[in-house]
Amino acid sequence: MEKKNNILIHEVGPRDGLQVEVETVPTEQKIEWIEELIASGMDIIQLGSFVNPKRVPQMADTDELFRYFMVHGKTNDKVILSGLVLNEKGVERAMACGVDMFCMGVSASETHSMKNTGMSTEEALGRIIGMSKTVIESGKKIQVSVQSAFGCGYEGKIPESRVLDIVKTYIDAGIMNISLADTAGHANPEQVERLFGSILDINQDVQLACHFHNTYGLGIVNCYTAWKTGVTLFESSFAGLGGCPFTAIASGNVCTEDLVHMFNTMDLRCDIKLDKIIDVSADAEEFFKRELPGNLLKIEKNK
Amino acid sequence: MEKKNNILIHEVGPRDGLQVEVETVPTEQKIEWIEELIASGMDIIQLGSFVNPKRVPQMADTDELFRYFMVHGKTNDKVILSGLVLNEKGVERAMACGVDMFCMGVSASETHSMKNTGMSTEEALGRIIGMSKTVIESGKKIQVSVQSAFGCGYEGKIPESRVLDIVKTYIDAGIMNISLADTAGHANPEQVERLFGSILDINQDVQLACHFHNTYGLGIVNCYTAWKTGVTLFESSFAGLGGCPFTAIASGNVCTEDLVHMFNTMDLRCDIKLDKIIDVSADAEEFFKRELPGNLLKIEKNK
Repeated sequence: MEKKNNILIHEVGPRDGLQVEVETVPTEQKIEWIEELIASGMDIIQLGSFVNPKRVPQMADTDELFRYFMVHGKTNDKVILSGLVLNEKGVERAMACGVDMFCMGVSASETHSMKNTGMSTEEALGRIIGMSKTVIESGKKIQVSVQSAFGCGYEGKIPESRVLDIVKTYIDAGIMNISLADTAGHANPEQVERLFGSILDINQDVQLACHFHNTYGLGIVNCYTAWKTGVTLFESSFAGLGGCPFTAIASGNVCTEDLVHMFNTMDLRCDIKLDKIIDVSADAEEFFKRELPGNLLKIEKNK
Repeated sequence: MEKKNNILIHEVGPRDGLQVEVETVPTEQKIEWIEELIASGMDIIQLGSFVNPKRVPQMADTDELFRYFMVHGKTNDKVILSGLVLNEKGVERAMACGVDMFCMGVSASETHSMKNTGMSTEEALGRIIGMSKTVIESGKKIQVSVQSAFGCGYEGKIPESRVLDIVKTYIDAGIMNISLADTAGHANPEQVERLFGSILDINQDVQLACHFHNTYGLGIVNCYTAWKTGVTLFESSFAGLGGCPFTAIASGNVCTEDLVHMFNTMDLRCDIKLDKIIDVSADAEEFFKRELPGNLLKIEKNK
């Protein structure tokens, strides 16, 4: 098999991992973790979300975090710092604090879209396309996503044609960095192969990203299948954070260190310093005072 | 992709799951769990190991368990009850108590083989081939395995040629049901594809089985890749039992209900009653008074 070593890891723990936590992580603690993640050689790190601070207090310091790294610099010049932007105001805020890569997306599920944004998928998509123009003109990097691409907690199955229609709209708008997100953890490997394969059939130059949750223990196999199909950018969270802290369900993101370890076993991305990511995960476990899902973390603790 | 629905699940929890546990499970409790597993529509269930009862007290009632089902019958006539046999005495004991399928194997690691059996791989292989003749002549089913096929806790990497040489010896002896076991949880998906693919290159009529541990969280992806490569028989444990109970490391077998769920998401083996397996897993969690690794179990508990 062809060795594809052009894998990029997008650490989304500081955003998708922390935003569901009840206990707010102090900015200084976030900075310490992000510094360590940067030092690990991570490719992209999502620092936060430009959401209403009152709605998601965990993300209230997003602008401050970006500004910190704008002022103090990064120990690894190659790292890309990304932020999630939800609306035009978010784009403005992100522009002002030095975000490298703008992430934005719509849900393929009408119900999920309405609940999350108060807009239909079509309306939300129109907004995103508008916002993307501002970002592209500024010369910043952009990634767009389709949420609930593999199923929806409210609607169940999502027709693949809905996902592909959104993808086509993105491509027509000139956005070639596209992520499919398995928001509810419903994806299965055959579906992953089929859906990403269909996108490459539409346009083989799209840079594909994936974002899986591990609710049913299928996060890693979905990443592997995505990689085999041609996906090169993988979103994951240190320690497997991102699950609902109220339940013991492993509904978090794919665990970064477990994912990188898998690639390592196949002699891929051996440059990323796993010990540094595991350090952050161990710290997070102490901070949140509960066991987090990562397998490598468990092994490290029992050494 | 071709839909292969000839998948067979081999539940090895009563053997590989329980043998490492400190607290001995009473025979009546084992029978209750096995009855429920039979009722789930499981294809093959491994009741125990014909080992020296003094060496592994958890397996001391293996003969008694088989005799129970010989006398009382099985609620599902199609289920195959398997037992692990280690030596000629084990074959005799297994013959006497009605074992349907004899499982036996050697380790591809010399160190592991010596530590486990006091014999070199070659000597152990000679014994197995001799024992297999008795089983084949009796008309009983047989499955042979290569342990530490993907790496060894003592030796590290195991040359694939060693594994394939053992496999060739099995095939030459007329044994076509061959399992590769990832005893230490070292397998990666590319290796799985390569090694099973190499066996099918030698002889495409071999019925391939796999036995993965989930130490690094790669159990499910290895099963998926094995299936894509042509493996049809999957060994797993309810609740993901089989890990060392002294540590929190998820070193257990692939979790049966999580594995079956994966196949279900692809419309495969939807006949197996997942709720019954999860019931057994929930019972086992109560019995052992600790959290067990299965993801579906966690979801069920939080409903």
